[in-house]
Amino acid sequence: MNDTPSRVSDARTHACHDSTAFLTDMYELTMLDAALRDGTAHRKCAFEVFTRRLPAERRYGVVAGTARVIDAISNFRFTEEQIASADFLSDEAKEYLRNYRFSGDVDGYREGDLYFPFSPILTVHGTFAECVILETVILSILNSDSAVASAASRMVSAADGKPIIEMGSRRTHEQAAVTAARATYIAGFDATSNMEASLRYGIPASGTAAHAWTLLHVDENGKPDERAAFQAQIDAAGKDTTLLVDTFDISRGVENALEVAGTELGAVRIDSGDLGIMSRRVRHQLDEAGAFNTRIIVSSDLDEFAIAGLRGDPVDGFGVGTSVVTGSGAPTAGLVYKLVEVEGHAVAKRSSGKATYGGAKSAYRAYRASGVAVAEVVHPEGADIAQKPNLEYRKLTVPMIRGGEIVDAPFDLEDARELHRQARETLPWEGLALSRGEVAIPTQFVGFPEPAE
Amino acid sequence: MNDTPSRVSDARTHACHDSTAFLTDMYELTMLDAALRDGTAHRKCAFEVFTRRLPAERRYGVVAGTARVIDAISNFRFTEEQIASADFLSDEAKEYLRNYRFSGDVDGYREGDLYFPFSPILTVHGTFAECVILETVILSILNSDSAVASAASRMVSAADGKPIIEMGSRRTHEQAAVTAARATYIAGFDATSNMEASLRYGIPASGTAAHAWTLLHVDENGKPDERAAFQAQIDAAGKDTTLLVDTFDISRGVENALEVAGTELGAVRIDSGDLGIMSRRVRHQLDEAGAFNTRIIVSSDLDEFAIAGLRGDPVDGFGVGTSVVTGSGAPTAGLVYKLVEVEGHAVAKRSSGKATYGGAKSAYRAYRASGVAVAEVVHPEGADIAQKPNLEYRKLTVPMIRGGEIVDAPFDLEDARELHRQARETLPWEGLALSRGEVAIPTQFVGFPEPAE
Repeated sequence: MNDTPSRVSDARTHACHDSTAFLTDMYELTMLDAALRDGTAHRKCAFEVFTRRLPAERRYGVVAGTARVIDAISNFRFTEEQIASADFLSDEAKEYLRNYRFSGDVDGYREGDLYFPFSPILTVHGTFAECVILETVILSILNSDSAVASAASRMVSAADGKPIIEMGSRRTHEQAAVTAARATYIAGFDATSNMEASLRYGIPASGTAAHAWTLLHVDENGKPDERAAFQAQIDAAGKDTTLLVDTFDISRGVENALEVAGTELGAVRIDSGDLGIMSRRVRHQLDEAGAFNTRIIVSSDLDEFAIAGLRGDPVDGFGVGTSVVTGSGAPTAGLVYKLVEVEGHAVAKRSSGKATYGGAKSAYRAYRASGVAVAEVVHPEGADIAQKPNLEYRKLTVPMIRGGEIVDAPFDLEDARELHRQARETLPWEGLALSRGEVAIPTQFVGFPEPAE
Repeated sequence: MNDTPSRVSDARTHACHDSTAFLTDMYELTMLDAALRDGTAHRKCAFEVFTRRLPAERRYGVVAGTARVIDAISNFRFTEEQIASADFLSDEAKEYLRNYRFSGDVDGYREGDLYFPFSPILTVHGTFAECVILETVILSILNSDSAVASAASRMVSAADGKPIIEMGSRRTHEQAAVTAARATYIAGFDATSNMEASLRYGIPASGTAAHAWTLLHVDENGKPDERAAFQAQIDAAGKDTTLLVDTFDISRGVENALEVAGTELGAVRIDSGDLGIMSRRVRHQLDEAGAFNTRIIVSSDLDEFAIAGLRGDPVDGFGVGTSVVTGSGAPTAGLVYKLVEVEGHAVAKRSSGKATYGGAKSAYRAYRASGVAVAEVVHPEGADIAQKPNLEYRKLTVPMIRGGEIVDAPFDLEDARELHRQARETLPWEGLALSRGEVAIPTQFVGFPEPAE
């Protein structure tokens, strides 16, 4: 195949450079330009990432994408091609972009931590100019990754200790697929089908065969030969593989699987039908044949509710696709990036019904001695809070960038996964409910000099 | 700022090479490996992309992403790093991947065209091995792009000729944002906020200022100074700009805008409140001041229903974000990639209630003499159909790749946009209804030798 001719060059999958600087809305550049002209570009500002509410009346959210944000800020450098294309900009603005390096501070919640309405997930300090143009890429990353992690965490709770494999790559943008796998891993999924996610992030990869594998095995007359397919898979992957048994008839599929692999077969996968009924039948069939250790993996439009509904059934693992990569009904986290402070003055948009405190903020989470979380305590950055003697407090806000330099913060993926596991365990039991309802813990504003407008 | 230290290297935004080969599910590689071992790898196969139903009971879908798929197939080359990381593969499989070049044929619907249940949107011919490993990247692209285009097209209908700007970048993955802008443009949006989409695809960029711009303008006591913000924007961008008037009080905002810009002001934008009521009030206020040509742009959680609800109001343009990039309730198109033919034999999974015809297919769309579409006519590839004398037929399936070489097919973005505009006009009037209901035209299977299993 020849190289792509120019006719399709407008469709290239991604720009092959590390620059993240054009993953940006035009108005950030026009604001920058106007601010350079009127002298406000260099005002000291703080922008804050938070959400006013959790989608779908969920009980908690899961922070994901922060390490990708820090990386995107590092790579926020404009190429000459980008600058030349922004022909609406003044020469001064173009020169500013040419020399752009973020030189401010970033503080925020660790990846894997929980968040609630008004949790100050990320705070960016610097000049107006250097902070405002980071808005879009910061929100794109946090909104997509946190949406996936928040959905995934509920599925992990629902699975009650049984492993979940993420297999949703085909249902989302090809690059979002890779980072979705990462977000689900933070939330407690065990593996991904996505090869790039496995290579890039070190997430265990998983996968054996699709229906196409069985359908490929026809005899010379075009008649299906499921046993030939199973035999070839066992020959290539050994008996500890997972055979997909529902291409034609599930009972016959299990029969064929046992005939070919015997009782040492690793697992069977069921990808259609009523998974509760089918898993019980298949378990019975496997046990009757003495295949007590052969596991049953199910997939097929599973979400947290379907997973919870299978708790009483002999299912040993789940494959989850569409629902998790699309946030299970909430495909974006609804996080916003708002200017909260200008030259030390708290600022806020006037909005009916929205209690918004200006000013840069930090947060603690308060726990009972039993370890159960009771409140998200948000306070002005710099000030500290009066801690109640009967509660324990964990500081949620950690430094990530100081003067443009990345702080040695915990950005390890396994750390994030472990943090999330621990944080989820501290939720009061209502907080783990899958149903719509109230947020798991209230957000308290402490130490603010004035009420919200 | 220093280069990213190794602590965050697991979070890099994307791999900086053109290879699309690892945007792939692991099971495609294990199937490839097993097929090389048992000799089925080289069987001649056809895979087909289609959907069994349209999401949310919509009336039609819009094909988008095809040019990106063709490009992804061109760049489907494995790097040594990728091959080395796939340590579960046999040496034979690794060698196969090292030399991989797609050498088969691809046929399908043009970007911008409509599709319906069982429309054969894309058909991939080649050996099992070379076709099966393309599954994930093909579906990722078509499912994400078509989901966005299908939602966007409904919004364009609802807007009834008024322009729509796509501004949803911050609500979706940073790379999905770029391709979402492309998909909305195919569907008839007029511009995007996304700089990379403008640079990469030549889509008009649009954007002026956010609330942060107004909030930045405080006096030395920290008091808001909206007029200073408007003045600075006019100074930088001229009077033909769009002033965002709802940061504090809309009426006062419009007053300030008119004081600064006079009646030559290009537009005002309203981003909160009841947009119908507010647009009428603002129109009145503008007209009273003689600013008859100042346009009113609205944004704020708009979707196709909200846009339709504003038809009677004095709105001159829409900014749409979250809803369009998340597919307005249907974030993935539900397209599948199924093996339909092996060595000339039609194959299909047995599925209750799913009428599935095996074998490679092509399609026509049939129209009345008036130009109204009446049916999607799907027939076996190679065979042709008996055309009814009272109908006109348009061939939907066009060659895209032949023997691994890209055919000179119409992959121009403007062509796709124009094709969509024309195709949408041929829908029967019920087909443009925003409500849930039946598919706009039926899909007819003609000339198949045997009924579906």
